[in-house]
Amino acid sequence: MDRLVQSLSRLPGIGKRSAQRVAFYLLKQPPQEAQVLAQAILDLKHNVRHCSICFNLAEMDPCSICGDVRRDHGLVLVVEQPNDVATIEATGLYRGVYHVLMGRLSPLDGVGPGELNIQPLIHRIQACSDNTASTADNTSVEALRSPAVREVIIGTNPTLEGDGTSLYLADRLAQLGVTVTRLARGLPTGSSLEMVSKAVLSDAIYGRHSVK
Amino acid sequence: MDRLVQSLSRLPGIGKRSAQRVAFYLLKQPPQEAQVLAQAILDLKHNVRHCSICFNLAEMDPCSICGDVRRDHGLVLVVEQPNDVATIEATGLYRGVYHVLMGRLSPLDGVGPGELNIQPLIHRIQACSDNTASTADNTSVEALRSPAVREVIIGTNPTLEGDGTSLYLADRLAQLGVTVTRLARGLPTGSSLEMVSKAVLSDAIYGRHSVK
Repeated sequence: MDRLVQSLSRLPGIGKRSAQRVAFYLLKQPPQEAQVLAQAILDLKHNVRHCSICFNLAEMDPCSICGDVRRDHGLVLVVEQPNDVATIEATGLYRGVYHVLMGRLSPLDGVGPGELNIQPLIHRIQACSDNTASTADNTSVEALRSPAVREVIIGTNPTLEGDGTSLYLADRLAQLGVTVTRLARGLPTGSSLEMVSKAVLSDAIYGRHSVK
Repeated sequence: MDRLVQSLSRLPGIGKRSAQRVAFYLLKQPPQEAQVLAQAILDLKHNVRHCSICFNLAEMDPCSICGDVRRDHGLVLVVEQPNDVATIEATGLYRGVYHVLMGRLSPLDGVGPGELNIQPLIHRIQACSDNTASTADNTSVEALRSPAVREVIIGTNPTLEGDGTSLYLADRLAQLGVTVTRLARGLPTGSSLEMVSKAVLSDAIYGRHSVK
């Protein structure tokens, strides 16, 4: 019991009190219930791995997004974490594919370009230009590994480290002949001028765009 | 005493309890203290009026912003409320001038274009084109009433009604031959993809811009 409470309380968002409540709940349940949960935890570690194309977490390789021929494989959105893929997918607005860096540049924490999936992103874009030269069959799954990338959207978080990563990426990608864009910065929809910070107002003023 | 508490509790952010506390505090203070506060309240209503150029609240006419020859009078930021002017001025980032609509279009509340300072904005821009024809002396305060407006930045709030007002304004201003821009929309600096709403992500994806 103590070992379970200790393990549970290490999970994010679960303190010691919640951990105890979960443990007592499991005690009261029929044994199968606990079995199902335990098996699901084991399976998670066993079955979920990184997609070899976009590095998102998935049970299949390539993942369901990279393997979906109806998506636009010429548009690659670069994000920091698998969470970010889930967040953007939940909106249902984006029809391109992803590339997960698995972190952001953070020199103070010892995270340099080598620790992130930046080299694989460059290979992915370079492979594309080789591929468009020969007329490839784009509907086969193998061809999806190197589709023609037209545009890379940098979708790192709008934080200091995210911006640093974005600058570094833009610099590395500049020589590859793809369009590099960034997610827009500015006023969050639904807020008001009064409520936002100085930095947000600054983004909004400097980033203003022509109407029509 | 009851009358004061009632008056005070009508102020925004002051409930009945706070109003009572203020009333008892004033009772304990020397008479001059109460005199100073009462006079300040009377003076406020007496001295503060709308600037005849930008409609911001000010004690002078033209206000200190419209009267400042070091500011860029060719750049006009249109906002809903005097609060918004104060918010943007607090950042120290903006060197143009303002135009305060005194509200936003809100058909359900009976606020149409006639209730807002939209016609004066159009006059202000039209007067400018007459003025640039004759070579006016731009340093005199009189000339400030009709400087050459190059760009109107629409800075209504990123809400449904603010957007409606913005669309209406953009339409009205389109025929006047000035550049019309809007404050940028997108991810607020310092946030993360995980934390923002679907609408904000949508703005960020559709508003993405080329790097360099």
